[in-house]
Amino acid sequence: MKVGRRETFNCAHRLNNPAWSEEKNREVFGKCNNNNYHGHNYVLETWVDGAIDPETGYVMDAKILKDIIREHVTTPFDHRNLNLDVPDFKNLNPTAENIAVVIWNKLRAEIPSEFKLSIRLYETENNIVEYDGQ
Amino acid sequence: MKVGRRETFNCAHRLNNPAWSEEKNREVFGKCNNNNYHGHNYVLETWVDGAIDPETGYVMDAKILKDIIREHVTTPFDHRNLNLDVPDFKNLNPTAENIAVVIWNKLRAEIPSEFKLSIRLYETENNIVEYDGQ
Amino acid sequence: MKVGRRETFNCAHRLNNPAWSEEKNREVFGKCNNNNYHGHNYVLETWVDGAIDPETGYVMDAKILKDIIREHVTTPFDHRNLNLDVPDFKNLNPTAENIAVVIWNKLRAEIPSEFKLSIRLYETENNIVEYDGQ
Amino acid sequence: MKVGRRETFNCAHRLNNPAWSEEKNREVFGKCNNNNYHGHNYVLETWVDGAIDPETGYVMDAKILKDIIREHVTTPFDHRNLNLDVPDFKNLNPTAENIAVVIWNKLRAEIPSEFKLSIRLYETENNIVEYDGQ
Amino acid sequence: MKVGRRETFNCAHRLNNPAWSEEKNREVFGKCNNNNYHGHNYVLETWVDGAIDPETGYVMDAKILKDIIREHVTTPFDHRNLNLDVPDFKNLNPTAENIAVVIWNKLRAEIPSEFKLSIRLYETENNIVEYDGQ
Amino acid sequence: MKVGRRETFNCAHRLNNPAWSEEKNREVFGKCNNNNYHGHNYVLETWVDGAIDPETGYVMDAKILKDIIREHVTTPFDHRNLNLDVPDFKNLNPTAENIAVVIWNKLRAEIPSEFKLSIRLYETENNIVEYDGQ
Repeated sequence: MKVGRRETFNCAHRLNNPAWSEEKNREVFGKCNNNNYHGHNYVLETWVDGAIDPETGYVMDAKILKDIIREHVTTPFDHRNLNLDVPDFKNLNPTAENIAVVIWNKLRAEIPSEFKLSIRLYETENNIVEYDGQ
Repeated sequence: MKVGRRETFNCAHRLNNPAWSEEKNREVFGKCNNNNYHGHNYVLETWVDGAIDPETGYVMDAKILKDIIREHVTTPFDHRNLNLDVPDFKNLNPTAENIAVVIWNKLRAEIPSEFKLSIRLYETENNIVEYDGQ
Repeated sequence: MKVGRRETFNCAHRLNNPAWSEEKNREVFGKCNNNNYHGHNYVLETWVDGAIDPETGYVMDAKILKDIIREHVTTPFDHRNLNLDVPDFKNLNPTAENIAVVIWNKLRAEIPSEFKLSIRLYETENNIVEYDGQ
Repeated sequence: MKVGRRETFNCAHRLNNPAWSEEKNREVFGKCNNNNYHGHNYVLETWVDGAIDPETGYVMDAKILKDIIREHVTTPFDHRNLNLDVPDFKNLNPTAENIAVVIWNKLRAEIPSEFKLSIRLYETENNIVEYDGQ
Repeated sequence: MKVGRRETFNCAHRLNNPAWSEEKNREVFGKCNNNNYHGHNYVLETWVDGAIDPETGYVMDAKILKDIIREHVTTPFDHRNLNLDVPDFKNLNPTAENIAVVIWNKLRAEIPSEFKLSIRLYETENNIVEYDGQ
Repeated sequence: MKVGRRETFNCAHRLNNPAWSEEKNREVFGKCNNNNYHGHNYVLETWVDGAIDPETGYVMDAKILKDIIREHVTTPFDHRNLNLDVPDFKNLNPTAENIAVVIWNKLRAEIPSEFKLSIRLYETENNIVEYDGQ
């Protein structure tokens, strides 16, 4: 049984590889490389997979799951510049893929180990990533 | 090849474990424990996984799938109080997880055994469960 | 310039006119008359119409608008039975139309009089009402 | 890590098996058999599964994925009659299932073999198929 | 008080002005002129504006409104070719605007005259029209 | 007859009034004042109100409307920092309200004067503004 919780956060970011020339960055990342940043309304689905507790009828209380997501991901990320304000991206390009890895690692540390964990992250309504730790 | 069908139903329910004290129920289930019930617009996705029939080009005719879902799930559940009106929840707490198990069992009994079956149930736009019988 | 804010709340309710026979209630309100209630995920859009404040660039701070909506509408309504738990519906049938009138009156009392106020209320994705006090 | 891209296209089609009588076609395919065609706004999600390139932070550049989808699927399909204008359906009934197989094969030929590929196709908001080549 | 009802229907159509040359039709209507038709999932919102009936708490029973829309619009239009199967478009180009006029006139004839009527029609998620008879 | 077109763009921005102290800015604009910017996926609906041209059946060709919106709004705004990259906001706080005024003025200059113009701008799924020039 999988339980999913949807939360949102809004960030600025830019894509850039500091090992490359400005020219190559512009060529590869296009308008996402804009020096002054752009931004997105990210939508995060967190999925927890485990057995139903017969006493509560829950796999995991959605309120507890929500509190973990808010404390460890959406509150520290929301209304921030991922490149400048979130230390995880100091040396990591904040593509949707890398943001998903960072979020998954943060959540994995908080969600009890008997549950499998996967996430889906919408950068826009057209660009989506999914990650389950593998 | 998986084929999915989306249907909706609207119910009242409350979460409660009769083996617990009122106090413990309020502590665990919070506002979902409200004595007088609250309610949701449930959205049910039913997914059937099997081979394409070369004569029809269908895995399973969506009309037949829709009729099964309506006869066995959405018509008997819609505009009902899950706790009081639906016998399956007489002794089962109607969490999204338990509702999903009940629905999956009802559908599994009706959908030909050569098809794998999984469901996704939205309780709200933010709370979702998935179940495939395991 | 109009500013809109979307909030949600989940309730149980039933439609019934106590001046009518049970038979007439069942005939007019159909499955919405179910004795044991059913429920919905209501989506409320609150629209405030006024001039932009040149100092803030806001018509009305969305955070202030959100706090008003939550304090006066969504918190007292959410996870309640409209018929039994919300005094406004003690003698008023909680149709989407009447819920909209009640909400509009509550918000009108809190939102500064220089702003025009209108609301849109989704009972389901298919049933919607709009009210502006007239 | 899976990366998804959403694109849309709008087509006319009808369902028909030329090996059957008109009567049987009408019985099996119902209103979808209408001689003069009907149509849909198809929504296609393309999912590519692979490793993150440490230099770009991408599994696959969404712009490249988008260009492949548009060149090989959405541009040749959009505003067409699937039965009459798209050669793949000359002898293949354009059910959502068969459209998914055709699209998957076209994309599989273009997407580097180190990536797994799956697609989700919405024919309507209620009818969906998923295909991963198996 | 306005009451809205959402219904859907799926059609084939093409845009063409028989008074023009093929060349001019292709230039003006582009891919929408495709000889063999294309199609859409249309979404229709019907809005009725009137007073709340104090006995029912309804402006107009959504079930009655739904039945009118289905009988006069969505059933005769659904899974049809607007140009060939729907007589209203025999001499009228089925643009979203003209479809809206036709639908509004059909509904206006059925909805009691004490109610104002307006409709919103989505041809795609990006192309929308609204009409209130003026 | 009103015709609407939906387009999207993604920007970074921050809210700040340079005539105020840092403290007052933080107090009024909260996390939206973040020095390093945050960002949004903006959704813009542009509505044009006019008569149907009997030759085309269009109020205004959606393709022409789309081209105007893309040339004058979404291309110059998309993947930009509104405060730093878009001259209109050099001395104007980029609240949703002020962005709507800027967009409306740009579109008003391009859309023929026989059409009334209004826009709806979603900053998030919960925060929306509408502007018609008054």
